[in-house]
Amino acid sequence: MHIAITGAAGFLGQRLVHQLLERGELNGQAIRRLTLIDQSEPPVVGRADIEVMPLALDISAPGALDPVLAARPDVIYHLAAVVSAAAEADLDLGMRVNFDATRALLEGCRAQGLSDTRLIMASSVAAYGGELPETLDDLTALHPQNSYGAQKAMSELLVNDYSRRGLVDGLVLRLPTIVIRPGRPNAAASSFASSILREPLGGEEAVCPVPTDLELFVMSPARVVEALVHGAEVPSEALGPFRAFMLPGITVSVAAMLETLREVAGDAALARVRHEPDARIAAIVGSWPARFTNDRARRLGFRGDDSFREIVQAFLDERA
Amino acid sequence: MHIAITGAAGFLGQRLVHQLLERGELNGQAIRRLTLIDQSEPPVVGRADIEVMPLALDISAPGALDPVLAARPDVIYHLAAVVSAAAEADLDLGMRVNFDATRALLEGCRAQGLSDTRLIMASSVAAYGGELPETLDDLTALHPQNSYGAQKAMSELLVNDYSRRGLVDGLVLRLPTIVIRPGRPNAAASSFASSILREPLGGEEAVCPVPTDLELFVMSPARVVEALVHGAEVPSEALGPFRAFMLPGITVSVAAMLETLREVAGDAALARVRHEPDARIAAIVGSWPARFTNDRARRLGFRGDDSFREIVQAFLDERA
Repeated sequence: MHIAITGAAGFLGQRLVHQLLERGELNGQAIRRLTLIDQSEPPVVGRADIEVMPLALDISAPGALDPVLAARPDVIYHLAAVVSAAAEADLDLGMRVNFDATRALLEGCRAQGLSDTRLIMASSVAAYGGELPETLDDLTALHPQNSYGAQKAMSELLVNDYSRRGLVDGLVLRLPTIVIRPGRPNAAASSFASSILREPLGGEEAVCPVPTDLELFVMSPARVVEALVHGAEVPSEALGPFRAFMLPGITVSVAAMLETLREVAGDAALARVRHEPDARIAAIVGSWPARFTNDRARRLGFRGDDSFREIVQAFLDERA
Repeated sequence: MHIAITGAAGFLGQRLVHQLLERGELNGQAIRRLTLIDQSEPPVVGRADIEVMPLALDISAPGALDPVLAARPDVIYHLAAVVSAAAEADLDLGMRVNFDATRALLEGCRAQGLSDTRLIMASSVAAYGGELPETLDDLTALHPQNSYGAQKAMSELLVNDYSRRGLVDGLVLRLPTIVIRPGRPNAAASSFASSILREPLGGEEAVCPVPTDLELFVMSPARVVEALVHGAEVPSEALGPFRAFMLPGITVSVAAMLETLREVAGDAALARVRHEPDARIAAIVGSWPARFTNDRARRLGFRGDDSFREIVQAFLDERA
């Protein structure tokens, strides 16, 4: 089994790589080769029986992925993306990376005849927006109110059409907001959702740019990686007529997140969160829905976290 | 007022041109100029006070529309498209005309700073598909099961995002199946829906490739043109957070269409319809839903036909 991963140097990509190396197999087959693609060469972690090949590539450059696809990977994880606030700030960059590169990847699969290759793309809750029902389901329209979401929604349609035509075996997982990300704040509009826990838990200050009654739909890094792995194992026949759906996150308000912070780390930790409203961030994140049924995902065996407390505890356990 | 129309030589484009020339004004302003664009030069119909400029252009060629957009049209009707069965047969052609050309048009508007130009694109019921509720509404997801629908759905997202960013003042009208089209059968999967009435009413044979219990969501050419005109007059503020919605068609089964044919033209006319199932056509058209509430369209003042009998009668009146 040969697995290729775009965005492999990213937070999610790295966690996925480690998980795959630890498992050594995917969908019942031994992993022989991992091709790790990112703008700069992803770090290589070794395992004697798996050939790990890091590649520095601009996947939006014409033909950039041809050599990778010519090696006929069995599974492709397409995680590379320009995040929400960055795509909002630069329409051209977002279109090129979030949409054109996805299209080039699909065209490459078509050119190489990779009809049996499982292509798993990460999409996002940011693809939803506008007028919405109280609780969203698998048939709720994507009316994105940010360019990142629009680019992801367009890519979903393309992955679905190429899969329907038998040109690739695609699957798009819409990710909830991932909490708690390690590291530093980034250009994602949802960056604060990790920041307001991670920084205070580490003894640092954090800024909360949104009202505390804002609800988010969140999932832990561990559950997201588990879903990516499971995405390679779901049989094509089970996927149904549209190959994109929301993963089962949990609904939590910013107030409840902060209350969990207080429960776990005390008043001192909570006091490290400064409230500085940012209308731009609040507008983007506020347009993302937070309540979903996830019938399709659950039927296909995808699992969510049990509670927000558990998400925070897992973060602390990992750090320890 | 300067109006540009892509696909102006087509059936809908030509009806729109005639309607605009007859009105002489749009949204309360006198029409001074009509730029008519199609692959081959659209026929010119004169009116002394309106400059009509026909242009033969491949709108999918880079920069092809630049001169038109540099003239800063107030309203653009984007009707050019590769129809459903043709887009299914040739993925590249469909992507180029149905999606890339729309993107180029939006980029051209952006480059020229046409933020106040009302861009009205025609989309289609073919953008819906897959698992669907019994009756669809304005929040039902687009899960297209044909490449034409996927390309239209992607274009919708792009028109919406460019409009949200203030780069153009876009609006997408999803058209029901248009019945009765004049002329001859074409490569649209829905071509039969006009054929099974038009040909028998003209004394000719027609082929019905679908089961008679198939329901369609239909609208007469006159109502569609009326909607296109109205689309230029709806204020931007009223359009809401997603600028694409379904027009109010009426739901009719093929059996009811044929019964109306019999009522209007007798058993002899009905006998001219040969039933020859075509699995490919039935699969495409069968994936299009036929029952909609159209709250948004109606709230915005778009109107549908009153009955299928009226649609047939209007066709006969026009022909007379």
